Amino acid sequence: MKLWQKENTLNKEVEKFTVGEDYLLDKKLVYYDCLASIAHAEMLGKIGILTSDEVNKLTNELQNIIELDKKDEFVIKIEDEDCHTAIENYLVKQLGEIGKKIHTARSRNDQVLTALRLYYKDELINVSNNINTLKSSLNNLIKKYGHIAFPGYTHTRKAMPSSVKLWSNAIIDSMKDNDLLLKSVLKIIDQSPLGTAAGYGVPLKIDRDYTAKKLGFLKVQENPIYAQNSRVKFDASILHSLNQIIFDLNKASSDLIIFTMPSFEYFQLEKEFVTGSSIMPQKQNPDVLELIRANYHKILSYEFQIKSMGANLISGYHRDIQLSKKTMMDSFKIINDSLLIFNLIISTIKVNEKKCKQAMTSELFATEDAYKLVQQGIPFREAYKIIAKKL
Amino acid sequence: MKLWQKENTLNKEVEKFTVGEDYLLDKKLVYYDCLASIAHAEMLGKIGILTSDEVNKLTNELQNIIELDKKDEFVIKIEDEDCHTAIENYLVKQLGEIGKKIHTARSRNDQVLTALRLYYKDELINVSNNINTLKSSLNNLIKKYGHIAFPGYTHTRKAMPSSVKLWSNAIIDSMKDNDLLLKSVLKIIDQSPLGTAAGYGVPLKIDRDYTAKKLGFLKVQENPIYAQNSRVKFDASILHSLNQIIFDLNKASSDLIIFTMPSFEYFQLEKEFVTGSSIMPQKQNPDVLELIRANYHKILSYEFQIKSMGANLISGYHRDIQLSKKTMMDSFKIINDSLLIFNLIISTIKVNEKKCKQAMTSELFATEDAYKLVQQGIPFREAYKIIAKKL
Amino acid sequence: MKLWQKENTLNKEVEKFTVGEDYLLDKKLVYYDCLASIAHAEMLGKIGILTSDEVNKLTNELQNIIELDKKDEFVIKIEDEDCHTAIENYLVKQLGEIGKKIHTARSRNDQVLTALRLYYKDELINVSNNINTLKSSLNNLIKKYGHIAFPGYTHTRKAMPSSVKLWSNAIIDSMKDNDLLLKSVLKIIDQSPLGTAAGYGVPLKIDRDYTAKKLGFLKVQENPIYAQNSRVKFDASILHSLNQIIFDLNKASSDLIIFTMPSFEYFQLEKEFVTGSSIMPQKQNPDVLELIRANYHKILSYEFQIKSMGANLISGYHRDIQLSKKTMMDSFKIINDSLLIFNLIISTIKVNEKKCKQAMTSELFATEDAYKLVQQGIPFREAYKIIAKKL
Amino acid sequence: MKLWQKENTLNKEVEKFTVGEDYLLDKKLVYYDCLASIAHAEMLGKIGILTSDEVNKLTNELQNIIELDKKDEFVIKIEDEDCHTAIENYLVKQLGEIGKKIHTARSRNDQVLTALRLYYKDELINVSNNINTLKSSLNNLIKKYGHIAFPGYTHTRKAMPSSVKLWSNAIIDSMKDNDLLLKSVLKIIDQSPLGTAAGYGVPLKIDRDYTAKKLGFLKVQENPIYAQNSRVKFDASILHSLNQIIFDLNKASSDLIIFTMPSFEYFQLEKEFVTGSSIMPQKQNPDVLELIRANYHKILSYEFQIKSMGANLISGYHRDIQLSKKTMMDSFKIINDSLLIFNLIISTIKVNEKKCKQAMTSELFATEDAYKLVQQGIPFREAYKIIAKKL
Repeated sequence: MKLWQKENTLNKEVEKFTVGEDYLLDKKLVYYDCLASIAHAEMLGKIGILTSDEVNKLTNELQNIIELDKKDEFVIKIEDEDCHTAIENYLVKQLGEIGKKIHTARSRNDQVLTALRLYYKDELINVSNNINTLKSSLNNLIKKYGHIAFPGYTHTRKAMPSSVKLWSNAIIDSMKDNDLLLKSVLKIIDQSPLGTAAGYGVPLKIDRDYTAKKLGFLKVQENPIYAQNSRVKFDASILHSLNQIIFDLNKASSDLIIFTMPSFEYFQLEKEFVTGSSIMPQKQNPDVLELIRANYHKILSYEFQIKSMGANLISGYHRDIQLSKKTMMDSFKIINDSLLIFNLIISTIKVNEKKCKQAMTSELFATEDAYKLVQQGIPFREAYKIIAKKL
Repeated sequence: MKLWQKENTLNKEVEKFTVGEDYLLDKKLVYYDCLASIAHAEMLGKIGILTSDEVNKLTNELQNIIELDKKDEFVIKIEDEDCHTAIENYLVKQLGEIGKKIHTARSRNDQVLTALRLYYKDELINVSNNINTLKSSLNNLIKKYGHIAFPGYTHTRKAMPSSVKLWSNAIIDSMKDNDLLLKSVLKIIDQSPLGTAAGYGVPLKIDRDYTAKKLGFLKVQENPIYAQNSRVKFDASILHSLNQIIFDLNKASSDLIIFTMPSFEYFQLEKEFVTGSSIMPQKQNPDVLELIRANYHKILSYEFQIKSMGANLISGYHRDIQLSKKTMMDSFKIINDSLLIFNLIISTIKVNEKKCKQAMTSELFATEDAYKLVQQGIPFREAYKIIAKKL
Repeated sequence: MKLWQKENTLNKEVEKFTVGEDYLLDKKLVYYDCLASIAHAEMLGKIGILTSDEVNKLTNELQNIIELDKKDEFVIKIEDEDCHTAIENYLVKQLGEIGKKIHTARSRNDQVLTALRLYYKDELINVSNNINTLKSSLNNLIKKYGHIAFPGYTHTRKAMPSSVKLWSNAIIDSMKDNDLLLKSVLKIIDQSPLGTAAGYGVPLKIDRDYTAKKLGFLKVQENPIYAQNSRVKFDASILHSLNQIIFDLNKASSDLIIFTMPSFEYFQLEKEFVTGSSIMPQKQNPDVLELIRANYHKILSYEFQIKSMGANLISGYHRDIQLSKKTMMDSFKIINDSLLIFNLIISTIKVNEKKCKQAMTSELFATEDAYKLVQQGIPFREAYKIIAKKL
Repeated sequence: MKLWQKENTLNKEVEKFTVGEDYLLDKKLVYYDCLASIAHAEMLGKIGILTSDEVNKLTNELQNIIELDKKDEFVIKIEDEDCHTAIENYLVKQLGEIGKKIHTARSRNDQVLTALRLYYKDELINVSNNINTLKSSLNNLIKKYGHIAFPGYTHTRKAMPSSVKLWSNAIIDSMKDNDLLLKSVLKIIDQSPLGTAAGYGVPLKIDRDYTAKKLGFLKVQENPIYAQNSRVKFDASILHSLNQIIFDLNKASSDLIIFTMPSFEYFQLEKEFVTGSSIMPQKQNPDVLELIRANYHKILSYEFQIKSMGANLISGYHRDIQLSKKTMMDSFKIINDSLLIFNLIISTIKVNEKKCKQAMTSELFATEDAYKLVQQGIPFREAYKIIAKKL
């Protein structure tokens, strides 16, 4: 029995189609929904809708669900549709009439929003931690190899001298800004939607400050229409901030794919990181870097999906948006996997000092040569032309 | 042991990351790879690389794999990485030295391309069949309700009279053009890549016409570099042709979401097709239509993913593109599910003749009124102004 | 006075915002609208709405507009909004009452659709011609340099021997398939929308076959709702077919950016094709290739703009779609410019035989070596391992 | 003569293709480049590369250019390529040898970055101001009509009571968060790239803090590789923050398109805001809202253009990115125009209290009815079912 079900049943084909993978995905949300339900039950006690005995029984059973879930023993069936229904059904089964009261003053819509938002907050902090781990590894790379110079490129052409330090610090600085953006987004989404119900509030005086504080939200998201409309927007902002991170990994991987080519070999991947070819005995392929590079496009397309899916629709919840759940969960997995694997690469990669040195050919110093003339008093534009003629 | 493996092993984390879900996805390709391997083995026999006994043994075992696979008993392990490796490992296990000969004159790259292309061809025909089923249902809808007039809209404003027939035929005609495009794309991709190896051919005289004919391809894809480069392009063209189909479903669903609103109710969904709300007892929601509408954006984002993933890369295979396998498989599922569910809706939807009639208000006939004046000899532009003033 | 205007005037800010650049863009459509208007006037004569004298006067003035337009003397003012209004206003000014009759039995909507479709047909043929020019230049490149071998790459790593011929033919074959797709799309869109009015036909017996034949369309687009809904779809299909073309240019440019690096220099750009740096005297940058590469992403984004803009909307015209006009016109310009410039590059590029030869290092022949063992009877998988160990 | 030109000239076709519209677009950047050049000249004076007399002459001429530009009299020719060249050419023409010294210790690359970033900062503040204007207008709407209730929708179905106040505040709250994000992005990009040259610094001790402070940047962007790589990222973050704003306008316009339908008419657009049809005398179309809605998709596609264009490329400047200049400038125009026009609508729109009241039908109160039972002690889930049965 679903939360919204009355007499009639849903066509089986339609049920399969509409439920989709929700009942599987929601495993990730059981914990968060229980937290929100506990806060909600306590609030209902505080405003006198539930007795303190009812509150205790409900919170105990919700704690039980959390424990079951930890042991992977809380099951969501396809007929349950999602974790919210499964949890309410469990409470009704355990507590009878009391279970039927948990849904007072809320809608599944704000349950979904609240559980997702708590989940997002944890995941964003995860990502931020993985960023920091990568920054440490890059700093270690600098300690080991930072002094080694190799060519800097513009237009995929040798330009001026670069170095392992310069290259690594570019990623570090970029990751710092990524983290700033991530934290800004985290702060913006850190609003409690609990109590906005289906987007138009509930006809009961509830204490939204209480649940917001209890759940650790920075503030209450006051406007219930905005609570619904913000789902697409917050998803999009999260994906954009993840996109900025994996853009850096895309670029760094692109660098390393070129810089580890045998023709250059400024960097060398560990043997156990490269893959071969089924036909060409000699091949040592950087598949791992190519897949990180490719993952950027997955995230990018996911961001586009959410942003196009949510457009041209009037205010208020639409089922369309439910599809974003999997998209968001996949995105966090892709980002965290990519950060961890890229971190593994940075932690083990070797710099080939000899090859770097060989590559530092004279044209890289043409600008320096021009500046030597500048320091003898020749205007830069003249100096530039003098050196250009010599090349 | 993977097809490309020599001594050294792959880092476990990297293996997990690079293999991804391939070993699961490839269940769909076992059958096609076996077909291609049989054709390949026979060709090797024909050009004298294999004896006819070897060919027989190989094709027998490949047939066995097909049988196992039908019973869902052919397992691809994560260490196998993909179906191609699993199949070769099976052959070596069963046939020893003979198994080691199956990979002569081919690369895993052309195996992947060939298996995928055979799979695509079957799926495209599936889609085409589902289009035809929907066209039939729409024709049935016309038979039942076609004569009923309801308002036609422009700018989401009542414009001129429309009808169930006109509306249904718009979808039918659009689906006919979708099918034309699908067939054009099918024809373009119907080229055998088998024998292009890793993108630069094989240093052996092989008979590519033989395998192409045997596998039912329209022609040989001659150029091996193009064989590789065409993967992204063909994937993109398939996705575009699927996108055109689901665009129609997105629009028709958007129509029905509006036309089934209680305020209009030109159409009525079966009770067993609507879902309710967990908080609002009265709600009857068209989730099923919203999800079809939303699926359009999944396909759109997948198309964008492939098209952006494959760009800015030089010729030749890159591992990036392997990620498109899941994207393509998911897309076929989404399209076919959406077509079938939309077909179910069209087969069961009711037209409310009374509500349609009520909605045929006078302003819908303003153009007709103007044309009555035109037929009395008044220039259209004058007639238009006369009628406009009256409204 | 706009075609739809009655008494009240449009707010000036709103007019500026809604007209946008239409009055400028429509210069490209004056000719096509005149052709369509001539066909329309003749048809009105044929069915007795206009006298033959009226038809003659209208067609004469429309021919005059075509002549004025050729000399760039037909002006569309911002108050005219678009070419359709400007043309009707001109006819009314010249012919008085007769001019007011030209709009009988049509809507601006089908004028826009018809003019655009005629314009698209011409532009698609243009593109096809530019494809053919490029194929010729590639064939000339093969004649001159085709025999020269250089390394083929997979995973951006040397793989097996390639050659100028193989590389050029990959582009030629791909362009042939592009042309097939383009022609398929051209055939699908080659339907006359004239007579579908605002999407629900006209309350008059008109002869749509006559105008379709007169304008050179393959067939009549029967269903008026589909005529409107197909705009987004046909725009999208055109953009997809253009996208396939510029994908090839993106890849070929990516190849050439790498292959012209001084470290490889298999190919050399003419001096007058490279640009320099304002600070680094030595730089010779392939900006021209980079911009062709980048243009791919413009087309890609335009395709997704149309595809996302048109979604989640009910059937029938929406003003949203008017924005696609500029997008389509820009796209044709980008494609044609890119094809012409890439053709110029291919016509002038040099192949450095010496550098190519130097790059043909032994690992490229590892597969060939393995096949020598195969021909001595060693199973391929063994041969592969023997050679791998030697490397 | 371009900044990078030596002896040889650029092929005319290639010049036209590579310069594109830069020479026109750069009108918007002349002012900012002059500011940056003045700061740069003063810094060169401070570190002893220029004499104070040279600095004075240069800054005077740069001030002259600013004045000329204000009067629209500073011309950038196509041969100049961009504003940076035009400005240096002007200085050389006016000051001879001294003019040739202005380019000391910088590259055109950091000029472009610096000018763009100053321009972005101003434009972002513009956007923020336009957001605030809209918030005021919404507050006025609340003052006038806020108390009026009309139906709230979920799944495009009547759900629970909403009101003008609730609806308006949803936009206001969303715009507040948009502004927070905008300001976060503004803070992140507020880093001075001046002095990073072509991405690898300059071989001179320059005072980057001085120029950064002088130009009003929050801080110096230390790493020169990151300065280059951040261009795509910062552009993308700006576009994302603009996207969030226009997403709200897309949704609010979608609401108003439905809510102004004659069948609902909760809101009414001013007569001078609606457009008509050329064939249907009765039509009053909300083109202005449709175009705002459509503009969302322009911004969305622009964001994806930048994000896909910049991917799969190694570190360092590529000419590809130059194409983003027009994209960014167009985006600011679209956002500001859309905000201003939407503000005009909100400032003039009428609420039809009578129609709103009529629409407040009983099913909107089903949830309230259920809660009346809850307050009589019936568990919510029971109350829900009791009410559902009555409907």
